[in-house]
Amino acid sequence: MSEKAGATLHMIDLIRKKRDGLVLDAREIGFIVAGTASESIPLEQLSAWLMAAWINGLTIEETRALALAMRDSGEKFDPSRLGKQAVDKHSTGGVGDKTSFLVAPLAAACGVAVPMISGRALGHTGGTLDKLDSIPGFRSALTLAEFEAVLQQCGAAIVSQTPRLVPADRVLYALRDRTGTVECPGLICASILSKKLAAGLNALVLDVKTGSGAFLRKRADAEFLAALMVATAEGAGTHTVALMTDMSQPLGRTAGNWIEVAECVELLHGLVPVGSEDLRELSLRLAGWMIHLGGRTETAEQGYWAAAGALADGTALKVFLEMVKAQEGDLTVFDDLKASHKPGATLVLEAWKTGYVSQMDTMELGWAVQRLGAGREKAGEPVDPHAGIDFHARRGARVEKGQPFATLYATNETMLAEPVDRIKRAIALSDEPPEEVPLVSHVFARENAERYLQDTSSS
Amino acid sequence: MSEKAGATLHMIDLIRKKRDGLVLDAREIGFIVAGTASESIPLEQLSAWLMAAWINGLTIEETRALALAMRDSGEKFDPSRLGKQAVDKHSTGGVGDKTSFLVAPLAAACGVAVPMISGRALGHTGGTLDKLDSIPGFRSALTLAEFEAVLQQCGAAIVSQTPRLVPADRVLYALRDRTGTVECPGLICASILSKKLAAGLNALVLDVKTGSGAFLRKRADAEFLAALMVATAEGAGTHTVALMTDMSQPLGRTAGNWIEVAECVELLHGLVPVGSEDLRELSLRLAGWMIHLGGRTETAEQGYWAAAGALADGTALKVFLEMVKAQEGDLTVFDDLKASHKPGATLVLEAWKTGYVSQMDTMELGWAVQRLGAGREKAGEPVDPHAGIDFHARRGARVEKGQPFATLYATNETMLAEPVDRIKRAIALSDEPPEEVPLVSHVFARENAERYLQDTSSS
Repeated sequence: MSEKAGATLHMIDLIRKKRDGLVLDAREIGFIVAGTASESIPLEQLSAWLMAAWINGLTIEETRALALAMRDSGEKFDPSRLGKQAVDKHSTGGVGDKTSFLVAPLAAACGVAVPMISGRALGHTGGTLDKLDSIPGFRSALTLAEFEAVLQQCGAAIVSQTPRLVPADRVLYALRDRTGTVECPGLICASILSKKLAAGLNALVLDVKTGSGAFLRKRADAEFLAALMVATAEGAGTHTVALMTDMSQPLGRTAGNWIEVAECVELLHGLVPVGSEDLRELSLRLAGWMIHLGGRTETAEQGYWAAAGALADGTALKVFLEMVKAQEGDLTVFDDLKASHKPGATLVLEAWKTGYVSQMDTMELGWAVQRLGAGREKAGEPVDPHAGIDFHARRGARVEKGQPFATLYATNETMLAEPVDRIKRAIALSDEPPEEVPLVSHVFARENAERYLQDTSSS
Repeated sequence: MSEKAGATLHMIDLIRKKRDGLVLDAREIGFIVAGTASESIPLEQLSAWLMAAWINGLTIEETRALALAMRDSGEKFDPSRLGKQAVDKHSTGGVGDKTSFLVAPLAAACGVAVPMISGRALGHTGGTLDKLDSIPGFRSALTLAEFEAVLQQCGAAIVSQTPRLVPADRVLYALRDRTGTVECPGLICASILSKKLAAGLNALVLDVKTGSGAFLRKRADAEFLAALMVATAEGAGTHTVALMTDMSQPLGRTAGNWIEVAECVELLHGLVPVGSEDLRELSLRLAGWMIHLGGRTETAEQGYWAAAGALADGTALKVFLEMVKAQEGDLTVFDDLKASHKPGATLVLEAWKTGYVSQMDTMELGWAVQRLGAGREKAGEPVDPHAGIDFHARRGARVEKGQPFATLYATNETMLAEPVDRIKRAIALSDEPPEEVPLVSHVFARENAERYLQDTSSS
């Protein structure tokens, strides 16, 4: 067409605009999101726009407009009746990443409300809801009213996304998965934040993974996403920090479903099993920030020590058990953690040579966990609650040939072979120990996030 | 996924590959085309791939693989039984571009077969089939058997694409129109050539327009497309040349449907109405190349003079009338060309000032023609056979204020106003005459086309 048709928006024009590297305004972004939620824009037009956005990128303003429009595309949770600051944590996902089961009760025990809306396993990463499903009876599909009731009672609740919460995201997320448009900072940021903002959070702590098991493997990409999420969320009125954390090896000792829950329950009992130190430390750091941003302490460090107290005195364990009970989980499963673990097949993998554990391809380890039966390749596939890996040696450790390196749990014997090969390929045993990697390498808050984005866009 | 799954291809991987700027091989391109024709690849995946191809481009090898796979996606026409070389002309489209009605009978009169598969009007450009529909009874939707019969009898036939000829192109073309992925040299080239190659042509003459009324307005884009089409078609075994021709003003005197057919019939009668000189000249040049590439003359210039002879002695007119009759058109409509023109409303637009016609925004003029009723904005809309514009002054001419500048024909009185404004906006009348623009500025054949593409890709 040679003429602009005044006030009417047409999807074809917005596709061409993004295709040509131009910037869409909030009204145009809102048009796309409304048309996505109402299904009035055909999927083929949406996917062309998504690919143009993937290749040409979205500005911070476009990302913010997208997150806000998506937040407003469906029903929202109002935490104001809880009488507490509502604070959540979100992780970009990794292998053995089970901090939710610790930070939710830790922060709740210290006086903030934690309305946590979580997801399921996909690809090489596990899912919080699949892990909770390993507790018999546990129900994560609560209505917003049930969600509020559990929060009132326990201070924390972990649920799945309701069908009417951010419906635009459900459409876009499934479409991005099918059309190769997942790994786009602006789209990832808007997808995550829209759900967090729809939960009415006062503050948010982001755990952005870097290293071989992270969703974004390049450090610069992960930093950019972290800064973008902080700037976008702050611009939308939610106090937010992002911790850049290590995923150059699985977090903690276990990767699977029930075995991850069990590892957390051991920690909540005040124990620190060998190999769980980093999990304990990161959970306290994240909870510390949640407690601080939720207004309960002056600093994040004070929040850390408050959380450490709640871990030591058993109040966090109490919150966790109350929450599981309120969500209809069977607490007897925690009476004997080992006895509750019923894998179909078990194999102890011995170290195949002597040396230092110098490198772990953690994404490959995540795929090994998935292939044992603990994860899913495609959305909707069932997972085995008892499959997974228990690692007996961590990065930097020296192992002797023949020493137990990891215990593999699979649905059946035939599912053990391939993961064994994958683990051997994924692990380097060397004569020299590797350099240490800090657990938390950087923290982005509003000011340094905005400065980072300015520096990035001007370079 | 962390692993390549051997020989099995997945559309998601091919989307990611093109998204990341990598090159697909012929097997991968073939997979996409086969999945398009069989409708086994969802439209949203196809459109994501199209957008990635639009932004990142297709190589010459990818373009050739795409054209060949599309050619092979459905039924094909076999012209070998005609006992003559089959040669066609294709134009990238313009305003008043009616050379098909001249070159088909001219080349056929000189001994080559012209199996012409044409299209309909869309946007600012007219369509050969819509123009032919202004002849009462004319039938363009022939079966391949009927097509062959008309070609045997007359040497030329102009038909619409059959539903089973290049089905992959029909899907992709409609999808590109909806997803903002039309103007991509590789996709345009493959779409055009797949249909020409499916017609089994021995040779092809391309008329690539440049200037204000061309589909590709930038000279460099039009040159690249011309060189790409020549190199791709030659690589597929069809002798091809591309003429870069002027579209800085409408071609010939008229733009519409019946009035364009009538202008051609006047020329076929040996008349050269004022304002039709460029149409006559370009048609002879194109026909000359067709006759030469069809093996009837040693050079294109000899072909030109052979065509000029067929125009002068009436044999081309005879072929045209036979073809129209064979396709069931009513020949009595040619008895009195003026009387056969029955517009709903007529307006003579007078020159609004004195000066030289120094510039014409020909695309804008094309939209004026469309708005008078002669074209369509969306596929499937009806067109008025009698609407259009008769231009009385061409680029470079000096007009006196008040002198008739153009005659407008519309479906009704109310449809005249907007096109009048558009024409006035589109035409610049100045004190100085404009520089002359050559009618044919360049000819690409195999060697200089390949050199051009090498120079372009290395710069």
